[in-house]
Amino acid sequence: MDSKRPLILVCNDDGITAPGIRHLIKLMNQLGEVVVVAPDGPQSGMGHAITVEGILRCDKITVDDGPQIEHSCTGTPVDCVKLAVNVVLDRKPDMVVSGINHGSNSSINVIYSGTMSAAVEGSLEGIPSVGFSLSDFSWDADFEPSAEIVKGIAAKVLAEGLPHGVCLNVNIPKYVGKPYAGVKVCRQAKANWEEEFDSRTDPRSRNYYWLTGKFVNHDSGEDTDEWALANYYVSVVPVDSDVTAHTFVNELNTWGL
Amino acid sequence: MDSKRPLILVCNDDGITAPGIRHLIKLMNQLGEVVVVAPDGPQSGMGHAITVEGILRCDKITVDDGPQIEHSCTGTPVDCVKLAVNVVLDRKPDMVVSGINHGSNSSINVIYSGTMSAAVEGSLEGIPSVGFSLSDFSWDADFEPSAEIVKGIAAKVLAEGLPHGVCLNVNIPKYVGKPYAGVKVCRQAKANWEEEFDSRTDPRSRNYYWLTGKFVNHDSGEDTDEWALANYYVSVVPVDSDVTAHTFVNELNTWGL
Repeated sequence: MDSKRPLILVCNDDGITAPGIRHLIKLMNQLGEVVVVAPDGPQSGMGHAITVEGILRCDKITVDDGPQIEHSCTGTPVDCVKLAVNVVLDRKPDMVVSGINHGSNSSINVIYSGTMSAAVEGSLEGIPSVGFSLSDFSWDADFEPSAEIVKGIAAKVLAEGLPHGVCLNVNIPKYVGKPYAGVKVCRQAKANWEEEFDSRTDPRSRNYYWLTGKFVNHDSGEDTDEWALANYYVSVVPVDSDVTAHTFVNELNTWGL
Repeated sequence: MDSKRPLILVCNDDGITAPGIRHLIKLMNQLGEVVVVAPDGPQSGMGHAITVEGILRCDKITVDDGPQIEHSCTGTPVDCVKLAVNVVLDRKPDMVVSGINHGSNSSINVIYSGTMSAAVEGSLEGIPSVGFSLSDFSWDADFEPSAEIVKGIAAKVLAEGLPHGVCLNVNIPKYVGKPYAGVKVCRQAKANWEEEFDSRTDPRSRNYYWLTGKFVNHDSGEDTDEWALANYYVSVVPVDSDVTAHTFVNELNTWGL
C-alpha cells in the first residue's frame, strides 16, 4: 500500500455550506486527504451544465473546523470538478465523491442532477467517482444512520477502482428509525416526470411559470433502484458516460439512411 | 395516413434567433405544422439543466416570415421542451427536432449539449426526437448543402418513430465544397476534453477563469461518430436516456457491498 493517504475531491450541487456535503467531508476525512471544490450556492437540477458564456471564480475559504482544504466556486458542479483537477489540485485525485445530495437522484433524476454530473465528470477524467444522495429533501435530514454504508462504499471504490467513464450513483432511503435492509446493485428504473407548471402573474401583470411535477415510475422490475429504495435498500447503479443506445444500432442500420 | 399534418416542435440551445434554428424551421415547415419554443439567448453547454431555483417566462414572438408559431423562453433547452409539451401545445407533438447547432455535438459532447438534452427530454416524453449539429461554429456556417439529408432523416423519424427514451444525435461535417460521403449509423466515440483554464485578473485585482480546452479522441474504432465525421459522413448515434452501465453490473455484484 502507498504510504501516502489517498487524495479525495469532494463536490456537490446543494452548495458548499449544505449539511449533506459537511457530513460527507467529515466521513471522507477518515479515509484520506480531503479537498473540497464546491458551488458557492444551490446548483440543483444543473445536469451536466458547464460555464461557457461567462467567467468562473474559485476562492479558498474556511467553512468549519477540520483538516480539509476548501474552495468555493461560482460555477456548476461540473465546472467545480474541472477547476479542481486542472487548477486547484497539484496531483490527480484518487477519488471524486459528490453529495450527499438533499433528495433522491435515482432513476431518470440522474440526468438532471448536478451531484451526479460531478461524478460523471470525475469518471471522464479517469478518476473513480461516486455520487451520494439521501431521499430526504429536508435541510435537517438525518445523514448519520447511513454513515458506515457511505464510508464502506467509498473505501471499496478507492480499493477497487472503476472503469474509465463509469461512476456510481448511490441513493439512500430516508431513515425511518430502523437499520437499512442492505445495499443493492441495480439498474436505473424507467421513469419520468410529469410536469405541472404553476402559472402566475407578476406585479406588472406579466405571466411567469414555476416548474413543478410528479415523478412517475413505469418500471416494475425488482432489479431497479426504485424497487431497492422502496424496500429500504441503499441502491448502487453504475452509470456510463457512453450514452449510445447500443441495442438500437442494428435496427437503425435497417432504415437505409 | 392521417389527414392532419404532423406537429413538429423545434428547439435549440444557441437561442431562437440563431441561423441554425432559422434554417431548421424552414426545412420543418416543409414536413408539417411547426411550433418553435426556444431559448431567448445562448444556452450552449447547459446539458440537461432545468430551472428549479428561478422562474420561467415564455412569450409568443415573431422572428421572421413563415407559417411557424414561435415562443421565446427564458429557460434552458430542456425547460423549453417541458414548457412546450405542458403549456404551449394543445396536443402532443409528433416529433421534436433540436438545432441545428453551431458546432459539433459528437462523442462526449452529447452530455454537455443543450441541443441534445432537448432531444433527450423529448424522448423521455415519448416523442420521437432528433438533435442536429453542424461541425462549424461560424455564425455564417453553410447549412444549405445538408438540407436534404436533415429533411430525409427527420421524415424517416416521423415515419418510423423511435423507442421510448431513445433519440438520435445527428452530426454533419463542415461543408468543404463537395457532396457529403453519406450517412452512417455510429456509436459515440470514447473521448474527453482536456481543459486549459485561462486565468485572468479583473480590474479590482481579483482572479477569475475562462474555461477552455482541447477535445481528445481516444477511440480508433471505425464505427464511431468521430470516424464518420473525419471521413465526411453525416453521423447518426442513437442516444439512450438509460445511462446504466449494464456491462459493469455483474462485476459490481462481486464486490459484496
